[in-house]
Amino acid sequence: MKIETKQAHFSSPLYLESGRILEPYTIAYETYGEMNEDKSNIVLVCHALSGSHHVAGIYEGEKKAGWWDDLIGDGKAVDTSKYFVICSNIIGSCFGSTGPMNDNYPSHQPFRLKFPVVTIKDMVRAQVHLLSSLGIYKLKAIVGGSMGGMQALQFAVDYPSLSENIISLAATYETRAWTIAFNKVAMEAIRTDPRFEGGYYAKDAFKEQGLAGLAIGRIAGHISFLSPRSMDKKFDRNYVSTDGLFELFGRYEVERYMEYNTTNFSKHFDPLSYLYIIKAINTFSLERGYDSVEDAISRIKSKVHLFSFSSDYLFFPEEMEYIYKVMNKNSQQVTYKEIQSDYGHDAFLVEVDKFEDDIKSILGESNDK
Amino acid sequence: MKIETKQAHFSSPLYLESGRILEPYTIAYETYGEMNEDKSNIVLVCHALSGSHHVAGIYEGEKKAGWWDDLIGDGKAVDTSKYFVICSNIIGSCFGSTGPMNDNYPSHQPFRLKFPVVTIKDMVRAQVHLLSSLGIYKLKAIVGGSMGGMQALQFAVDYPSLSENIISLAATYETRAWTIAFNKVAMEAIRTDPRFEGGYYAKDAFKEQGLAGLAIGRIAGHISFLSPRSMDKKFDRNYVSTDGLFELFGRYEVERYMEYNTTNFSKHFDPLSYLYIIKAINTFSLERGYDSVEDAISRIKSKVHLFSFSSDYLFFPEEMEYIYKVMNKNSQQVTYKEIQSDYGHDAFLVEVDKFEDDIKSILGESNDK
Repeated sequence: MKIETKQAHFSSPLYLESGRILEPYTIAYETYGEMNEDKSNIVLVCHALSGSHHVAGIYEGEKKAGWWDDLIGDGKAVDTSKYFVICSNIIGSCFGSTGPMNDNYPSHQPFRLKFPVVTIKDMVRAQVHLLSSLGIYKLKAIVGGSMGGMQALQFAVDYPSLSENIISLAATYETRAWTIAFNKVAMEAIRTDPRFEGGYYAKDAFKEQGLAGLAIGRIAGHISFLSPRSMDKKFDRNYVSTDGLFELFGRYEVERYMEYNTTNFSKHFDPLSYLYIIKAINTFSLERGYDSVEDAISRIKSKVHLFSFSSDYLFFPEEMEYIYKVMNKNSQQVTYKEIQSDYGHDAFLVEVDKFEDDIKSILGESNDK
Repeated sequence: MKIETKQAHFSSPLYLESGRILEPYTIAYETYGEMNEDKSNIVLVCHALSGSHHVAGIYEGEKKAGWWDDLIGDGKAVDTSKYFVICSNIIGSCFGSTGPMNDNYPSHQPFRLKFPVVTIKDMVRAQVHLLSSLGIYKLKAIVGGSMGGMQALQFAVDYPSLSENIISLAATYETRAWTIAFNKVAMEAIRTDPRFEGGYYAKDAFKEQGLAGLAIGRIAGHISFLSPRSMDKKFDRNYVSTDGLFELFGRYEVERYMEYNTTNFSKHFDPLSYLYIIKAINTFSLERGYDSVEDAISRIKSKVHLFSFSSDYLFFPEEMEYIYKVMNKNSQQVTYKEIQSDYGHDAFLVEVDKFEDDIKSILGESNDK
């Protein structure tokens, strides 16, 4: 199938949790497979911090597949010969949906720091508008990992009847101080980088030389995405510099990995978008707008399927398990699986083989009904 | 007792692991209590990354006590009415021992990036010279936590008969990629901060306005010193800004803590020293210079007492346990205790009550012999 990005433009206001309004706004998205006649085969995928709507397939002339291509495609667990899959770029991001570097209409100047803070609830509401514009009011499943898993859960709470199934991996019911602290590294590193210029950098300022502040923040991110054991496996204490071991800036393999990946990342990811998205992660709590976390969870009508990874050092298994316990106590429909893994938080991206059968069977089971 | 810093000056060369030489050099140190006649009551304390030789007591006119004052003092577990306690500032640090901002003799210019990389082995060797200069060739105990615990273990391996007891807390037998990755944040943040000027900053450049790069690196440090649970206890999701929740740079309590502590830290800790010390931590492995970690450990003649903390996210209990297992298999004298704690790596500093009795009894037992 030919993969291409579409854009939906909205002239009606998006009312944000902050009380502010985003108007007009655009949502970039991709779809895979075909919607069936009774619209009963629709799966929405939500992406994480650094992801985009390009979740599966390969663009013409490119080599790299979408970020969850192992899971989604023809004959795969989320089988695009059966299901119509939609993935949209979250608002605030920098891959086609409205974000801080888009024009602050009616001016022709980017929002920059005037962009409103958006939350996971806001991201979810924007996606509901996208679905409506496509004539979609009912989903087979909403699937996401990490911040995508937060969105899936927020969908379940805020729109209890929208999706038959909610599949949330490597997420949590609220962001804990631990994660906010990791994000703080990026917040400060970007904010204090002189080349960030208080948000007033030129539009293509970092294409050649990435922003050091973002790269540094991203190192902290990568630490939280991995685990001590996955790092041992990947890097051990291998020393890779041509500089000797006793040169101050000589590098162990883990250091080279961090430098290489984060420097590249800082060339193509917008630092303002990064700040706004980590802010959205920081403010995430299912509780907000309800009496309590438990009250929020009790509203869920969907079947909820929770997956955690034993070595996740960002969102710990106990956090997903907590949602399970609350739902189970309420006799809500919920399953929970802690997947044994050494790959840390990233396991939801790199160990698809450990949960693809589960997802296939979740979709299949509900198919038979 | 009156607490004051002494300095020992050495004109003989310190041969470093790198093959380079430090000559001359100075070691700052403090002592507490009195050496007895047969010199059988001497305890050496080794400090961690950000510590100094000021381990106990209060300087005249000041309020803040030394960093392990809960453990060391008159009537405390390391009882200075019985023991003669020595703590020296490690070479490379910035509190009186020779470090990168000291003059590169015979020039009157600071070493800066010409300072040789020093290792834990080098720090230990320098302390052996200090002890010799004080006429000390036998110790009752060497005690340290974190990088101090690394030194204690390195003493045990390199100088098998120097100390009757080795007490190592919250340390490891070698620094893993996980810790090197945390240190990488500081390495890059300092290195790329324009005000660092490639190491050519003015001597008092950061006294008023700390170096952002060091503060950012220190945020990563603080994350690794705490634990998810200790952060929940300390900060939860408390929001403390006068700015509303939906202001991009509004701060959760954990963010304020990070900002406040790290900004202050960056005003008084030298960034070059920080780089050199984290490099020393990165290069730490008991293996280097021996056939294997096991071979190194097998040389130990001292009684070794290992303490880990269940929630230590920097050096995990399994690492200390590994040393125990090797020594136990060799029938070497070793004890190991995993202390249940929510306080993370910092527990060795803040939960002294959980191990002070053990240390008292270790010193007491050996006293009776």
